[in-house]
Amino acid sequence: MRLIIVGGVAGGASAATRARRLNEHAEIVLFERGPDVSFANCGMPYFIGGKIGHRAKMLVTTAERLAERFRLDVRTGSLVESIDRAAREVVVRKVDTGETYRVAYDKLILAPGAAPLRPPLPGIDLPGILTLRNLGDMDRIHAVVQSGIRRAVVVGAGFIGLEMVENLVLRGIATTLVELQDQILPPLDREMTPPITERLRSAGIDVRLSESVTGFATKEGGIEVQLKSGERLDAQLVVLGIGVRPEDQLAVDAGLDVGPRGGIRVDRYLRTSDPAIFAVGDAIEVEDYVLGGATRIPLAGPANRQGRLAAENALGGSVPYRGSQGTAVVGVLGMTAAMTGASEKTLRRVGRAFRKIHIHPAHHAGYYPGAEPMSIKVLFDPESGAILGAQAVGGAGVDKRIDVLAVAVQARLTVFDLEQMELAYAPQFGSAKDPVNMAGFVGAGLLRGEHPQVDAESLVDGPTAGGRLVLDVRTDREFAAGHIPGAVHIPVDALRSRIDEVPVDREVTVYCQVGMRGYLATRILRQYGRNASNVGGGFTTYQRLRGIA
Amino acid sequence: MRLIIVGGVAGGASAATRARRLNEHAEIVLFERGPDVSFANCGMPYFIGGKIGHRAKMLVTTAERLAERFRLDVRTGSLVESIDRAAREVVVRKVDTGETYRVAYDKLILAPGAAPLRPPLPGIDLPGILTLRNLGDMDRIHAVVQSGIRRAVVVGAGFIGLEMVENLVLRGIATTLVELQDQILPPLDREMTPPITERLRSAGIDVRLSESVTGFATKEGGIEVQLKSGERLDAQLVVLGIGVRPEDQLAVDAGLDVGPRGGIRVDRYLRTSDPAIFAVGDAIEVEDYVLGGATRIPLAGPANRQGRLAAENALGGSVPYRGSQGTAVVGVLGMTAAMTGASEKTLRRVGRAFRKIHIHPAHHAGYYPGAEPMSIKVLFDPESGAILGAQAVGGAGVDKRIDVLAVAVQARLTVFDLEQMELAYAPQFGSAKDPVNMAGFVGAGLLRGEHPQVDAESLVDGPTAGGRLVLDVRTDREFAAGHIPGAVHIPVDALRSRIDEVPVDREVTVYCQVGMRGYLATRILRQYGRNASNVGGGFTTYQRLRGIA
Repeated sequence: MRLIIVGGVAGGASAATRARRLNEHAEIVLFERGPDVSFANCGMPYFIGGKIGHRAKMLVTTAERLAERFRLDVRTGSLVESIDRAAREVVVRKVDTGETYRVAYDKLILAPGAAPLRPPLPGIDLPGILTLRNLGDMDRIHAVVQSGIRRAVVVGAGFIGLEMVENLVLRGIATTLVELQDQILPPLDREMTPPITERLRSAGIDVRLSESVTGFATKEGGIEVQLKSGERLDAQLVVLGIGVRPEDQLAVDAGLDVGPRGGIRVDRYLRTSDPAIFAVGDAIEVEDYVLGGATRIPLAGPANRQGRLAAENALGGSVPYRGSQGTAVVGVLGMTAAMTGASEKTLRRVGRAFRKIHIHPAHHAGYYPGAEPMSIKVLFDPESGAILGAQAVGGAGVDKRIDVLAVAVQARLTVFDLEQMELAYAPQFGSAKDPVNMAGFVGAGLLRGEHPQVDAESLVDGPTAGGRLVLDVRTDREFAAGHIPGAVHIPVDALRSRIDEVPVDREVTVYCQVGMRGYLATRILRQYGRNASNVGGGFTTYQRLRGIA
Repeated sequence: MRLIIVGGVAGGASAATRARRLNEHAEIVLFERGPDVSFANCGMPYFIGGKIGHRAKMLVTTAERLAERFRLDVRTGSLVESIDRAAREVVVRKVDTGETYRVAYDKLILAPGAAPLRPPLPGIDLPGILTLRNLGDMDRIHAVVQSGIRRAVVVGAGFIGLEMVENLVLRGIATTLVELQDQILPPLDREMTPPITERLRSAGIDVRLSESVTGFATKEGGIEVQLKSGERLDAQLVVLGIGVRPEDQLAVDAGLDVGPRGGIRVDRYLRTSDPAIFAVGDAIEVEDYVLGGATRIPLAGPANRQGRLAAENALGGSVPYRGSQGTAVVGVLGMTAAMTGASEKTLRRVGRAFRKIHIHPAHHAGYYPGAEPMSIKVLFDPESGAILGAQAVGGAGVDKRIDVLAVAVQARLTVFDLEQMELAYAPQFGSAKDPVNMAGFVGAGLLRGEHPQVDAESLVDGPTAGGRLVLDVRTDREFAAGHIPGAVHIPVDALRSRIDEVPVDREVTVYCQVGMRGYLATRILRQYGRNASNVGGGFTTYQRLRGIA
């Protein structure tokens, strides 16, 4: 039995070591085009920024170590050029000598990964315009950074783009972030992002939204970055973080099924259209765990677990991969953004019915010092309450809540389950009613009908549309500091005594700062016969929708 | 409709506000014996220690605020002496005047809480021997601490005991911790506790295990604490944290069903044996979510959620309480211990079959600076793999993993689900294979039979019992620093070349430091025909069982 694995990083390395543990006697050959296997690709921005001080830390393991401990035949600098499926052989080219040779396989696992996009813009090949995929890329960016440059441009405000921005700023480099969309972190819904955008700007980063690069030119002392707006930026370094494309050429050439966006097609057992060939990681299409159907989710966690499963299945097992739900987190300048499952924009795109809630709790008990604000959004099925996705931004505790909600998505739990969730509480760690419980209270109250809600979107464009009364129930001071145009003001504590000021014949849209007083006010009003609804997430969500942190 | 609530802290206050939101027109009367409602009882140790600087922070809300915002009739200093179930009236005594009066109810919710135990020891009523239940208690301890005392004794090393110890140490008070059992944190299994015990001792705390107090005497300048061992300790303050007893007298006198350990019996809807009377919080018996049957779980989170449900059901709803799983966390001197579900000792006591795994991972990627060690134990059903309970100790990230595992318990997930769990990964927050995934890999491997394991217990008493070979596969240096008596040493990387040194006719028990190399070695040995098993959690768990951190 000879198992050949193409690609030696997350998915490939996991597959190889798992295969060895399952089968001591199989011959396992791992081909890696680059010089390194199993490096810490998620750590690369932090080596560039100096957080990780020793380059050796970036090598999770080495070819020698894998040979010694796992008896793997690891061949770095070895490009698998083609697959001869009929003969069950791969053609390998040694990168240094150009020499090629053939190796037969019984089973083959493809883990080629995905390559950063480099759009064909004028000047794209100028020196100093770099992407970050492997340690060679990292070393190149690191060398430029170490040379004492003063200005950089990062193109793309996704996860890697933000991590690069943070680390360039740590190096004292004035950095501009250019993003095509009208928000940073495009996988998240837009209203979740203003707190992070604001943090970037307060750290001196020049954030350009709804902007794109049209080309590059040489300029004395660096690169001129040309923007669609007509503006030109000077930089000595440009990092492109605008997405990745699956490395599918090998699979395409071999006649394996490949999806429209380049992902290698696999079945539940991670088998390609050739039953002797498996594929894992950033190169494949996976099943969307929440929505069904094929999607691409290039993340390290799924890649590692897919590697394990593919090894097991290649060696005769039949363990299904359950699909990916897209749980991801990014830390930037002391803040955290994270998500799991479907976003609102995805749900809208595929036409899936949903309801949503926004809450803005503190990450632990308010009476204990150090509570940090966070915002959580939960999307759920309007009938069953099943959780379809969640997003959170803030500081401490954001990663925890998204992990909890990720398990809820995995277990197909509902907002009613979130209400009853028994999480660990001590004042340093959470609240007796944890933010996740709070999300459940709001979502379940909405579905039960006891908490009618209006999405804040409807207020942004036409606050008093349809003749409704918009009622601000916050304090005088809060109202004076800013409110929704046209709103009438009655503080919640005065609502009962001033109930006659609220018309019975008009729709009443209530809001407070985050939604809690608005909920109480809505309950009061409805019981006094008013047709009241609460604005989900209150004035805070309204402001976020307007791009204000 | 008049709803009367007895007790105004966690469960009672939650019930009252929820009842108001559900019903604007009900008359809601809240009786609280003490002067305060809805205070931050979980924060009291931190006020004593000075972490929480302002006493006003301890008041989550006030009677006035509840009256203003929720139109609640809050009567503090009002003891409900008896319930006239036939007349549906309570008899209330004003604590200050002694005057009594009767109030009729349609529905009654009991939330009397639980009182700290004060065992009838000689001298127990001497001044300076205090318990911590309400703000009055807190003020008394705070005053003693502020008076400049030098020595204190805390009796009981449970959650509150440890929180008190931490805060007394923060005040510079030399503190002795006396615990009856042979471990701190009795709700946890013993082998989980040595890292915390060690941390306490390294902070100068005198931890006395398997020790108890037999009496107290007056001594010049303070109290003499007499121990069972015969030793005497001097102290100016003794804090008792040895458990609580439900405040069941009111229920008992009213003829309501009460369990053998004093918990008020309720049905799934939190209704007592009188359908007009509900009960919530520390005073009740709840269903054990994992094991079924009645138990007492005095925790703030469940009390709050029970309060909400009891209000809903008292007002005509019928929402079942799902039971409590005992999720809890404590922070002490920078470390964290947490648990959810059943412990091993509980499973053994009730005779429930289980398997267990121990892992000792870092809380995030090792290549990113600041990774802290943690230990996780997971208990699961030997057939289905359903997770029965989990415990974790360490520093950062312990609370997150227990929350994730708490959801897994709630959703009745299995170790096979933990394997596939998709959690948020970036190097500051976790690992591509998160500790929770690792726990799943080990537990699922055990159940699948690919990872035969021996519990470390069997090695503590008789390492080479039954003629087995104990094989240490760590490095020379690790072996030299300490190993299991009688162990043979072959480093894992030399195992294949020295395979002939391992007998084929004896049971082989393999271990490494935490279990990972031992797993690989076990896989190798079995495929070479050896009858090998791995020690779960390795030498680290072995040492913990021996009380060594």
